[in-house]
Amino acid sequence: MEIKEKSILIDFEPISRRLYVSKESSIYELLNEINIPIRSVCGGLGKCGKCKILVQKGHEYLIGPTSNEQNLINETEIENGWRLACETKIKISIKPQLTKAQTPQIRIFLPSQLLLEDFKILTSGISKSIKLQPTIEKIFLNVKKPSLEEPNADFERIEKEIIPKIKNFKKNNKISIDFNILNDIPNILRKNHHKITSVLWNNSNIIACEPGNTIESNFGIAFDIGTTTIVGYLLNLNNSKIYAVDSKLNSQTAYGEDLITRLTYIKENKENLNKLNSAVINDLNEIISNLCRKANIKPSHVYEATVVGNSVMHHIFLGLDPVNIGLSPFIPVIQKDLNVKAEKLRLKISKNGNVYTAPIIAGFVGADTIGVILSSQIYNERPLTLTIDIGTNGEIIIGNRNGLFVGSCAAGSALEGAHIDDGMRAAAGAIDTIKIDTQNLDVSYTTIKNKKPMGICGSGLVDGIAEMLKSKIITRSGNFNRELIDQERFIKKDKEIKFIIVGKEETSIGKEISISQSDVRQIQMAKAAFYSGMRIILSHLRKSLNIEQIFLAGAFGNYINAHNAKFIGMIPDIHDNKIFQIGNAAGIGAQHCLLNKNLRNKAQSLLSKIKYVEIAVEKNFQKEYVEAMYFPHLNLDFFPNLLEYRDIPKR
Amino acid sequence: MEIKEKSILIDFEPISRRLYVSKESSIYELLNEINIPIRSVCGGLGKCGKCKILVQKGHEYLIGPTSNEQNLINETEIENGWRLACETKIKISIKPQLTKAQTPQIRIFLPSQLLLEDFKILTSGISKSIKLQPTIEKIFLNVKKPSLEEPNADFERIEKEIIPKIKNFKKNNKISIDFNILNDIPNILRKNHHKITSVLWNNSNIIACEPGNTIESNFGIAFDIGTTTIVGYLLNLNNSKIYAVDSKLNSQTAYGEDLITRLTYIKENKENLNKLNSAVINDLNEIISNLCRKANIKPSHVYEATVVGNSVMHHIFLGLDPVNIGLSPFIPVIQKDLNVKAEKLRLKISKNGNVYTAPIIAGFVGADTIGVILSSQIYNERPLTLTIDIGTNGEIIIGNRNGLFVGSCAAGSALEGAHIDDGMRAAAGAIDTIKIDTQNLDVSYTTIKNKKPMGICGSGLVDGIAEMLKSKIITRSGNFNRELIDQERFIKKDKEIKFIIVGKEETSIGKEISISQSDVRQIQMAKAAFYSGMRIILSHLRKSLNIEQIFLAGAFGNYINAHNAKFIGMIPDIHDNKIFQIGNAAGIGAQHCLLNKNLRNKAQSLLSKIKYVEIAVEKNFQKEYVEAMYFPHLNLDFFPNLLEYRDIPKR
Repeated sequence: MEIKEKSILIDFEPISRRLYVSKESSIYELLNEINIPIRSVCGGLGKCGKCKILVQKGHEYLIGPTSNEQNLINETEIENGWRLACETKIKISIKPQLTKAQTPQIRIFLPSQLLLEDFKILTSGISKSIKLQPTIEKIFLNVKKPSLEEPNADFERIEKEIIPKIKNFKKNNKISIDFNILNDIPNILRKNHHKITSVLWNNSNIIACEPGNTIESNFGIAFDIGTTTIVGYLLNLNNSKIYAVDSKLNSQTAYGEDLITRLTYIKENKENLNKLNSAVINDLNEIISNLCRKANIKPSHVYEATVVGNSVMHHIFLGLDPVNIGLSPFIPVIQKDLNVKAEKLRLKISKNGNVYTAPIIAGFVGADTIGVILSSQIYNERPLTLTIDIGTNGEIIIGNRNGLFVGSCAAGSALEGAHIDDGMRAAAGAIDTIKIDTQNLDVSYTTIKNKKPMGICGSGLVDGIAEMLKSKIITRSGNFNRELIDQERFIKKDKEIKFIIVGKEETSIGKEISISQSDVRQIQMAKAAFYSGMRIILSHLRKSLNIEQIFLAGAFGNYINAHNAKFIGMIPDIHDNKIFQIGNAAGIGAQHCLLNKNLRNKAQSLLSKIKYVEIAVEKNFQKEYVEAMYFPHLNLDFFPNLLEYRDIPKR
Repeated sequence: MEIKEKSILIDFEPISRRLYVSKESSIYELLNEINIPIRSVCGGLGKCGKCKILVQKGHEYLIGPTSNEQNLINETEIENGWRLACETKIKISIKPQLTKAQTPQIRIFLPSQLLLEDFKILTSGISKSIKLQPTIEKIFLNVKKPSLEEPNADFERIEKEIIPKIKNFKKNNKISIDFNILNDIPNILRKNHHKITSVLWNNSNIIACEPGNTIESNFGIAFDIGTTTIVGYLLNLNNSKIYAVDSKLNSQTAYGEDLITRLTYIKENKENLNKLNSAVINDLNEIISNLCRKANIKPSHVYEATVVGNSVMHHIFLGLDPVNIGLSPFIPVIQKDLNVKAEKLRLKISKNGNVYTAPIIAGFVGADTIGVILSSQIYNERPLTLTIDIGTNGEIIIGNRNGLFVGSCAAGSALEGAHIDDGMRAAAGAIDTIKIDTQNLDVSYTTIKNKKPMGICGSGLVDGIAEMLKSKIITRSGNFNRELIDQERFIKKDKEIKFIIVGKEETSIGKEISISQSDVRQIQMAKAAFYSGMRIILSHLRKSLNIEQIFLAGAFGNYINAHNAKFIGMIPDIHDNKIFQIGNAAGIGAQHCLLNKNLRNKAQSLLSKIKYVEIAVEKNFQKEYVEAMYFPHLNLDFFPNLLEYRDIPKR
């Protein structure tokens, strides 16, 4: 069997980027294509030796080392796996035997000195570099000592010294200082020969004064609080560099997997909000501590945190009661962005550090969506763009430079493995890709970290359903094909039919892993929610416009096989090269807000321009949803390019 | 014996204003003269009956009731002492027997409905009414309920409703809300049919949201934190009215009478600053509680407090370490005005209430002086004006519309009774006025609240010294006149000579009350400090200018016999009608800051225009001080109008 596309899997560490590659390109070219620019003096000509990478796995799928490398890297390094990114090419000619489910895998470690440039993200192939303009500015001051001739107060002498040094200081601005550090100033000045470093927030407010010169140590953390996963990025605010990334499961999952369960829990008892709030605050503090340890910096040198998350996560994080978000008409306490002192929220960064929360659009379209919009810059796009952020909840954004419409659908949890018999999250041992031989129904698959399979994660499920359709195992209405179910790969038990993906003997769970009739229904409902949601939102646009490009956001959106997502009818039928996987766009939005304060104004100003559509209350919703339950849709005219469907039975 | 001037004493309550009256005028005229305008429709013609007052004491010294009063006030009321201010005239013809020390006394209570006008103060005879423009604005809102069509968040719906209702709202202003009340909003809205009252600070920040309509209840407190006494004024921010006044001894006196002792105490041990801070915070909370009880309002309806006080009191109140104020070059932590949340300072008003502290000018010229400058509006005066604020510390302000110079002298404590054998504070039983018969040296006196004498307060001491000079009991150098000391009113003990003011049998302390040689020295030093301080500051002015008017501020400045203060050489020799007693000008300054936020900008902008003079380090200080030790001065040419000195021996 030959895998035509995406035949080699490359994991880039420590940035956790995964790519399927099917063309013979160099690692240097690949990294540039996905907008992770790396340091190179010669521009990828194999002459400067600056683009050193460490190949940790999969040497056999790489050409080289070349003579350039033998000149530029010493022997021991080569033995240990060091290569030059520009010289390391993928051996695409190899066609591995796939008797066992194995995609060739390469793992490459990118040393931190490689990732020196301004942070850039992947959107529509155009890198959108972010101008470094943080709210935090550290300024070293040699404060004038007081005398009887000039007996100015300590603060006033600092003020006099700092004003001429502030970037973009406007004449009428006033300098203030956080009251709780005012009393530290006399000693800090007098014990350090009046040489101190002031930390200024937003051009005006001194939030910390440190002895001596500490301007080098200037950090911020961007948080993406997902329903299931929390990610934190530690950024250096002097140079935009990511110094560390850390993530963990949201401890709130102990109180309920999905938002509705958590809202119900909060409604039961006032104290429960505090429990959930403490859970997320503890998670964030754990991440802060991990990030600082990894980067070897002090938490007191982290002066700002930016936070995105859906509306319920946003509210719980801030200790705001989210119950009205769960009740029609789904009203948050506040939508606008907030700046709250870290101490008030019990976050263990600098005691006067600022916590910025991005604004939320509506009850079920939160600050995470603002993050996606900011980082994808969909508001600057010319083509009509569909952006789907697939997490536990799904958000749909449609628009371009002429306007934006957003909506939400409770669709994602099946894609995270919930309510799926053998479903699981994208963790080690999860089946993440599936191929089915249309002839003999043999299944090949890969698992995350190549562990023995334990279950199927979202991308595996999408693959599985798509492949089951292509093999006519299921019909367009999602029923098992009665003609095939007597074969040995099927199980019939309690009237339910299952298709075996991995036999008992290959799994680590002592039983087979399969996709059942009810699993198919779950995926149908999820994909129907996305597609019908998109149709409803499209109906709000001025004319009957067609989607011209698609951004898939979220970890899931990044790992999914985009073609198969289209094949099952989750997203519209446009050419694969118009579908872009833009990574954790919400988290990247949080990073952008940390690096450039003007984006916060942008976020707030977008708020009034985004039209929110409450999908489920639209009168056409039921009809659209039912039609979208079919694979790929009741109306095949919507998917004219999926020629395979000509042979797949409808019922 | 006849007392020519100030022969009748009138106390106005509840505003605690005391006046000596020697001309036949109506109470209405008197109140207008001292700039306490009262309600009257007919303009004082005895026709409207609106100016009702309650005479509580001293009916015998008043003419009437008149026929107008009998027409306009009912019989029972007249029996209970009610009169019309415009019809109530003082019987100045009476010449009471003064065999015992008794000045005729009248006490008049002014009902709150009389004091309706904008708050006005007494300065140079021109009433300076303060425009009501507080930082606090209460706004009643009928918030729109949310719907699926308009699913705006709670805060955003409040914001939409409030913006058009804000006075002077500027287009680019943004509305914020204190984070700690955000979570109360959903319930307050939903439990009160979306009818709430928002409390807005400084046109932009919502600091409280209350159920229903509470706009009537809108209060602020102005505090004057003196070294010895703390006064609080409860003001209604809707109409400028004073609803209650309360004062108490500063509990810090337990740790030291004067500032230097307290600074030494703080220097001893870090924890001692906290003790002094807690003492003053507890005092303020006690005053808050008393004020609210007196006015029958909730402390949570007090939204702002303004505070003046000298630099050390300012620092201790804010918990800032004042030790550098006590060491050359006398450096405060901060000079500028501050706005701090009441909760941070542990003041028990509205939890997000704001505490404004006026700026301080220099180490020993504090926010109280800014209060004096603001309320006296010396910066608007044309005549060159000397303002002396006499408290435990003395502040000297010289200037006019062309500029201001300030300095400080540690002079006041003797005038508060410290280091004086029989000295005491101005409390019940204190001898507050003294007259000595130049022929037989008989002494007549008054005491506060007419209690049996216990000691002598500052105004009594100034009177005593002046009268002892006029009677040649002491000489211009402050020595007792050897020719007189054998008379029976003198005591010689342990080589010290004392002049008896009140014999043992008349006092409540079982011994006589007298003024000793060392008492005279204390007063000499105090008055020399003021006069030489004034001379030093004057020497900084552009030309050799002469003082054209004098404002005496502070409770002491108000009760002192201004002529006698001049007679002993404490203030320069200008005509008595150019000397104005302006009351507790610092406290009035705090009130003005509460009523009009623009004055706060004024205060801050004055800061850079006031020239501070460090009197004690000037090279001429010693010479000036020694010369000023003489009564009234070594150089009699400075006091050409005090003709009595022609007969008073120098040594």
